[in-house]
Amino acid sequence: MTFNTALHQLQQSEDIAIITHVQPDGDAIGSCLALADILERAGKKKVTLYCQDKVPALLEFLHGHQKFKNSLEDGQQFDLSIAVDCSDENRMGTCFAVFKAGKKSMNIDHHVSNTFYADTNLVDIKAAATGEIIYRIGKELTDNLGKHSAEALYTAISTDTGSFCFRNTTAQSYRIASELIEIGIDIERVTTLLYKTNRLERIRLLAKALSSLELFENNKIAVITITQRDLTSTGAMESEMENMVNYAKNIVGVEIGILLKEADDSTSKISLRSKGRIDVSLLAGQFGGGGHQAAAGASLPMDVEQARKEVLAAARKMLGAGTQ
Amino acid sequence: MTFNTALHQLQQSEDIAIITHVQPDGDAIGSCLALADILERAGKKKVTLYCQDKVPALLEFLHGHQKFKNSLEDGQQFDLSIAVDCSDENRMGTCFAVFKAGKKSMNIDHHVSNTFYADTNLVDIKAAATGEIIYRIGKELTDNLGKHSAEALYTAISTDTGSFCFRNTTAQSYRIASELIEIGIDIERVTTLLYKTNRLERIRLLAKALSSLELFENNKIAVITITQRDLTSTGAMESEMENMVNYAKNIVGVEIGILLKEADDSTSKISLRSKGRIDVSLLAGQFGGGGHQAAAGASLPMDVEQARKEVLAAARKMLGAGTQ
Repeated sequence: MTFNTALHQLQQSEDIAIITHVQPDGDAIGSCLALADILERAGKKKVTLYCQDKVPALLEFLHGHQKFKNSLEDGQQFDLSIAVDCSDENRMGTCFAVFKAGKKSMNIDHHVSNTFYADTNLVDIKAAATGEIIYRIGKELTDNLGKHSAEALYTAISTDTGSFCFRNTTAQSYRIASELIEIGIDIERVTTLLYKTNRLERIRLLAKALSSLELFENNKIAVITITQRDLTSTGAMESEMENMVNYAKNIVGVEIGILLKEADDSTSKISLRSKGRIDVSLLAGQFGGGGHQAAAGASLPMDVEQARKEVLAAARKMLGAGTQ
Repeated sequence: MTFNTALHQLQQSEDIAIITHVQPDGDAIGSCLALADILERAGKKKVTLYCQDKVPALLEFLHGHQKFKNSLEDGQQFDLSIAVDCSDENRMGTCFAVFKAGKKSMNIDHHVSNTFYADTNLVDIKAAATGEIIYRIGKELTDNLGKHSAEALYTAISTDTGSFCFRNTTAQSYRIASELIEIGIDIERVTTLLYKTNRLERIRLLAKALSSLELFENNKIAVITITQRDLTSTGAMESEMENMVNYAKNIVGVEIGILLKEADDSTSKISLRSKGRIDVSLLAGQFGGGGHQAAAGASLPMDVEQARKEVLAAARKMLGAGTQ
């Protein structure tokens, strides 16, 4: 029902704004670019894309990535403003102003935490990515999705499912990917750009991170430590540390993977990962942080040596409690 | 046509041997286990699996992995012997004896180099994995593939397509995966077992390998060196070096990734990877090796320092020639 209401709303509108969330990811950018392409193919007079933050360099291979604006012109209005992949209004950051400038509003999203903040709320929590919902819209509004949309939607779904590996991946995710490939995607090129491209600085940092690896409690706890000196000497960016904790977690026998980051002399950050048995959100909670059972984090007001001691002690206690 | 002939042959046979290739990979083991399961579901009296070499530890999560035998009993015969994922008879190693013990023979494979060595040759070079062909057989011979076959076939197709990323991946690969997931696969569990499980020893070796990384020619050539001491001090296995050359290749700007391995005091091995412009099979050829445009290797009768000098000089020359 909502789907048909949304289609009707799209059909009725000619001047459309599309807004996605701050710190946009592959699903945000891919879904927006595909939706814009679909609406243009469907003959809309004007479609404008908005995002508070820049498109990540990683996604600059997507056609149309340079079309995003980050602010509204004075007095500008739209027939329809569509928030894409935003669970609530705050996710739009400063571009919430664009959302408010729509005579009507729509919310297309897949997050379970969505707050239904628009006139029309097309929220499907079974979709692994917002890109899956956009795909369904595309099938209704155009006869031919086209290669640009196919590549954008593949990117959206692939990045939100960890390249079709995470638990949220469904038969539908693979089926849509199959149909997108039929439209025409150079799958090796796209996946190489998304997953197999590393800056030299990141590899230099990874070498240091892995060299710091320590194991405790019969290899059940693995700790990687990254200092400020590691960051400056390699030239790597903070964001490039992101997945390194998984090298600790993915070791055979490890139950808790810990990445310890020196923020400055008196602040440390921890990223925690669990293979499943231990709930690391409880561990993070002991230090004022939070997250999920399998992935959590916290910021500690102490130097990295002290943080290491305290987190290790707490992790050891949890392991002991977990095995009773 | 061949497909129907093969189906007919399978329907006519009751005592069936299934043989796969030496050093079996995910497609070999997954395809065999699924085919055996399908034939048993189709009511065959006896199905026996053969492989000269052991099932890799990585694949021991697959149901039935312990069923493989490595030799024939004296005088044993079969109604039908089926070679799976073997491009020629030599690929079966000592288990070729099992192949010969079939009153009839069949060859199910997807390699372009297949030599059509059986009575019935079901060879589809468009299939990304032999698992895709087995899936089609399963759809014909049973009403319900079952979870064990689904997991085995997902493993077969996923491992042969680099987790649905390599150039050989097709819309069909994704479509079959979609149908396998509908049967029931814990996709996160399987992909974690296949791709996100590392022995501590491998991570220790990776730390050393990445620490050895050197770049040349304005970062167009990246070299990783692994010595015998690295292997012994970390306890890693030779096979665990396999994908490390990709860390060199995948760096932004790199055109040739080189992994240099010290075999002993007077022998070195090189693994070469290209992003595409340079044909590394020509580079390997200069040292008596070979391979493909994007991936090649060679064994050099010299110590690792000398090998490093000679390979670098040759790589520099190729780069120069390539840019003219």
